[in-house]
Amino acid sequence: MDFAERLHETEEFLYAKIPLTRAMQVRVESYDENGLVLTAPLAANHNHLGTAFGGSLAALVMLAGYASLWLELGDRAAHIVISESNLRFRRPVRGTLRAVCGRPDDSALAEFKSNFAAKGKAWIQLKVEIEADDELAVIFDGTYVAKK
Amino acid sequence: MDFAERLHETEEFLYAKIPLTRAMQVRVESYDENGLVLTAPLAANHNHLGTAFGGSLAALVMLAGYASLWLELGDRAAHIVISESNLRFRRPVRGTLRAVCGRPDDSALAEFKSNFAAKGKAWIQLKVEIEADDELAVIFDGTYVAKK
Repeated sequence: MDFAERLHETEEFLYAKIPLTRAMQVRVESYDENGLVLTAPLAANHNHLGTAFGGSLAALVMLAGYASLWLELGDRAAHIVISESNLRFRRPVRGTLRAVCGRPDDSALAEFKSNFAAKGKAWIQLKVEIEADDELAVIFDGTYVAKK
Repeated sequence: MDFAERLHETEEFLYAKIPLTRAMQVRVESYDENGLVLTAPLAANHNHLGTAFGGSLAALVMLAGYASLWLELGDRAAHIVISESNLRFRRPVRGTLRAVCGRPDDSALAEFKSNFAAKGKAWIQLKVEIEADDELAVIFDGTYVAKK
């Protein structure tokens, strides 16, 4: 599978398995050494004020964390759950919602993968951010647990 | 408007103004002295494991907070935003998602309303919980800000 196919296949997986992602019109914009970027259009995700709905922002950042781990582990059968998260909302998002899940640093990722392989269970902390007008709008810190 | 009409009208407001709530099939189950209860069916809100999607749980608890404040203030023109939230996920939700936003205590609510009336701006902390199998499954603490 080439790279574009892999991103498209990830979208299809999300749409098939998590129906809300289809309603949100989530797209996988990119996945590279800088991390994973998911987007969702404002039209499907606005609130009564015409800005991004907090629930859509929360769902998108959480999803960016899940999808990063699926891609990193290369194992969608892994049972990945979120155990805790903190979300700070700094400013409204008036355009496309764009969640950037930075790649965890190499040592954290290596420990996560080796614990997952050896013990069948591992946890990791991920940060996901959404900008608006080139300023931080949403800051998400989540703790994820993966089990075989 | 009688009570059932008011709940139904709140649903219609959500569906018209926040399109994701229609996709989630959010219902207003009750609103009384104990607080507000919102529900959403698992079929529209599951993840790849067949349990409730973390993003749907997050969206539902946030929405319960917003809707509680709209109903308390009786003012949907109020600009209510969420500024920070903490979410703890204790166990999977395998059935209907049911978010209970307890009524804030009287003094906190009185201070919120009086600040809103006098200063045109007020904040309040709300707790929303989701149970599964009679045990706490999701615990949400959110700080909301209302502006005229």
